[in-house]
Amino acid sequence: MGMMFPEIRAEVADLHKHLIQWGLVVWTAGNVSARVPGEDLLVIKPSGVTYDQLTAESMVVADLDGKLVEGDHNPSSDTEAHAYVYRHMPEVNGVVHTHSPYATAWAALGEDIPCAITAMADEFGDDIPIGPFALIGSDAIGRGIVETLAGRRSTAVLMAQHGPFTIGKSAKAAVKSAVMCEDIARTLHLARQMGPLKRLPQTDIDKLYDRYQNVYGQTKQGSR
Amino acid sequence: MGMMFPEIRAEVADLHKHLIQWGLVVWTAGNVSARVPGEDLLVIKPSGVTYDQLTAESMVVADLDGKLVEGDHNPSSDTEAHAYVYRHMPEVNGVVHTHSPYATAWAALGEDIPCAITAMADEFGDDIPIGPFALIGSDAIGRGIVETLAGRRSTAVLMAQHGPFTIGKSAKAAVKSAVMCEDIARTLHLARQMGPLKRLPQTDIDKLYDRYQNVYGQTKQGSR
Amino acid sequence: MGMMFPEIRAEVADLHKHLIQWGLVVWTAGNVSARVPGEDLLVIKPSGVTYDQLTAESMVVADLDGKLVEGDHNPSSDTEAHAYVYRHMPEVNGVVHTHSPYATAWAALGEDIPCAITAMADEFGDDIPIGPFALIGSDAIGRGIVETLAGRRSTAVLMAQHGPFTIGKSAKAAVKSAVMCEDIARTLHLARQMGPLKRLPQTDIDKLYDRYQNVYGQTKQGSR
Amino acid sequence: MGMMFPEIRAEVADLHKHLIQWGLVVWTAGNVSARVPGEDLLVIKPSGVTYDQLTAESMVVADLDGKLVEGDHNPSSDTEAHAYVYRHMPEVNGVVHTHSPYATAWAALGEDIPCAITAMADEFGDDIPIGPFALIGSDAIGRGIVETLAGRRSTAVLMAQHGPFTIGKSAKAAVKSAVMCEDIARTLHLARQMGPLKRLPQTDIDKLYDRYQNVYGQTKQGSR
Repeated sequence: MGMMFPEIRAEVADLHKHLIQWGLVVWTAGNVSARVPGEDLLVIKPSGVTYDQLTAESMVVADLDGKLVEGDHNPSSDTEAHAYVYRHMPEVNGVVHTHSPYATAWAALGEDIPCAITAMADEFGDDIPIGPFALIGSDAIGRGIVETLAGRRSTAVLMAQHGPFTIGKSAKAAVKSAVMCEDIARTLHLARQMGPLKRLPQTDIDKLYDRYQNVYGQTKQGSR
Repeated sequence: MGMMFPEIRAEVADLHKHLIQWGLVVWTAGNVSARVPGEDLLVIKPSGVTYDQLTAESMVVADLDGKLVEGDHNPSSDTEAHAYVYRHMPEVNGVVHTHSPYATAWAALGEDIPCAITAMADEFGDDIPIGPFALIGSDAIGRGIVETLAGRRSTAVLMAQHGPFTIGKSAKAAVKSAVMCEDIARTLHLARQMGPLKRLPQTDIDKLYDRYQNVYGQTKQGSR
Repeated sequence: MGMMFPEIRAEVADLHKHLIQWGLVVWTAGNVSARVPGEDLLVIKPSGVTYDQLTAESMVVADLDGKLVEGDHNPSSDTEAHAYVYRHMPEVNGVVHTHSPYATAWAALGEDIPCAITAMADEFGDDIPIGPFALIGSDAIGRGIVETLAGRRSTAVLMAQHGPFTIGKSAKAAVKSAVMCEDIARTLHLARQMGPLKRLPQTDIDKLYDRYQNVYGQTKQGSR
Repeated sequence: MGMMFPEIRAEVADLHKHLIQWGLVVWTAGNVSARVPGEDLLVIKPSGVTYDQLTAESMVVADLDGKLVEGDHNPSSDTEAHAYVYRHMPEVNGVVHTHSPYATAWAALGEDIPCAITAMADEFGDDIPIGPFALIGSDAIGRGIVETLAGRRSTAVLMAQHGPFTIGKSAKAAVKSAVMCEDIARTLHLARQMGPLKRLPQTDIDKLYDRYQNVYGQTKQGSR
């Protein structure tokens, strides 16, 4: 009998390459998941497996309580947090967690990253907010992500003294958010070393966000 | 029927590799264009396409108002700014835009990078200036680039709270300027963390710039 | 006649790839060793050989006084320190030494890295401590490692004005500790540039460490 | 007729790979040379050629006044400085020049890098000194290198507001010095961001340097 959702597994396995390519993770410390469309299930990285060993076959399927449904390994220890997000944010179809160095430095500091450059207004439309400190092993991390992001434009939250979680309409969009979050966290860390950061005017942030979300990247056929 | 300007397309597609190799971009956030010699046209990266998917075929041709002439994707959302530069600076045949982290940190700070090391005097002959803050969607970015660089030696401008744009006599020269701009922005950021930067004497900057622009890199046959 | 312990040699040679992949070393400045199970012997990197030349054959076998037993090259000049650790810490089966830049910066500063993020509580369960300054050429380095780590959870010690040594139940675990030590040293260096570090509450550190050491990464079959 | 010194050309071309591998250069901004044993000649990188185009054939031969002897391109614009070193330091058989970012940051600052970690005592036996500011186009750079390094242990000098030059008994040794210089400049830049650097006691520097230069890396046969 074949494994469940071979295409989603392959996509999720493949998306982890971005975490390595853009310097977001070391060893096994980061994970990508995707919601299975129309099912109360998700596909996620197995726990403790290194990136060069990730294959469609090694991915695991879990339910939205984070319990293993199919797979040869345990799901990532962050699965409960991913599952909580999928249960409470129906528009979210992808979640990413990393300990990327600059974003995690801001998370250790405990301050929102102010929306001070146009690329951040484009992608996040807002400051990237700090979430609460929460221990693993209960709903606390998932609840902190959802409560922080609910009603905001930002698709990234910096869980305090822990690291970034990002969400997206697709797993790829959540990966893009993680990559952009680290890039922006880096640029604004470097800028802050030289002087105080200046938040963009809210009206400019609004204009940039609206244009980027509605115009950017569309093909002539109107699809993304 | 074959596509227009296959050699220029191939060159522009290929030059994007430098943006990845030297750490100037993540995801799709950077673009290279070239003027089509003798035509009111340019070749540029398509919008929202990742670097590993860039081919000569995927490049797009636009006119100097930034309108699509040929291509399967929309041109980069920065095309209007590139086009404005080509319209107003006839000596420019290549334009590059990135959000490279150190140059963008200086752009967020809003200060010119002072000409404090010999490599910067060689390549830029000057401070790298800050340009105005300008929103996308009108001539404002292009005008800010042209007004800042007109009459200056520097081929790089740091658009405030946005990032660097670079120009060149060729697309390759504009790419080199982007690479050198980031390298110098990094070195002088690191130096500034340790103490105040010392601008080189203007007479030394002049000598270095003159020598580098007129002697460096020439072959025995006198060509570059 | 075949060489001794070909599988351990191959594993130790291969583990050095992580030092390059994760940016822990330049040139030849880092080494991994493994205890030979059931023997008073260790396998270690040869001295002065570059990483791209490391093969199972080039690895050397030394006794637990650091004396060469088999190999075409001298053992790493750090072998005495590794050997001292194996003599005095029977639970240790792998040792790694690097001059990774951020961990070595903390070693130059001479301050413990405070346990300020959850990934550090997971992996180290503690601050990463500074060890004494010790010269090569006697037991001083090995003794400094053992005295600093004895009775602590941390598997990493920052030898003052020198660099990190890490230990593990296996050579791979010691390599993981070195990779995580550098990653955490980097993140907390970056955070410290922006504001004072906040150590996590000890009760939270204890919970995180206990969970990670006892639950994380286990397969369904209960093995690691 | 075959080209002169094919083996030295191949070695010098190949050594440039280290400049890329260890992040010492961008674009074409760095060069390696080797003295031709027994001749008043040197082999060096051609001017303005990118690293991926370097081959044994593209290397150029110059005399010790920096004049081209054989080659299809002009020699590096730094050839006069390399040649001056070979004329005045007969024990030197390799010279390297880069604008590696951390070493150049110290050069922009204008301060010696203090000998504050054991790896620096091993390799350089001393602080890495600042040399004078000197313009290209005369003997000034070469003289500044020689006058700064004469009678010192350090094989690296940071030419003020310019960048590092390193020397060695072989071209490979000069490359190693350039790699270690950047690594140490980085580590001590990072350390200095956290607190004042503490120079090692001179007696410990002497012991470390003596041991490393006379013992480290030797094979059982006594060769390096």
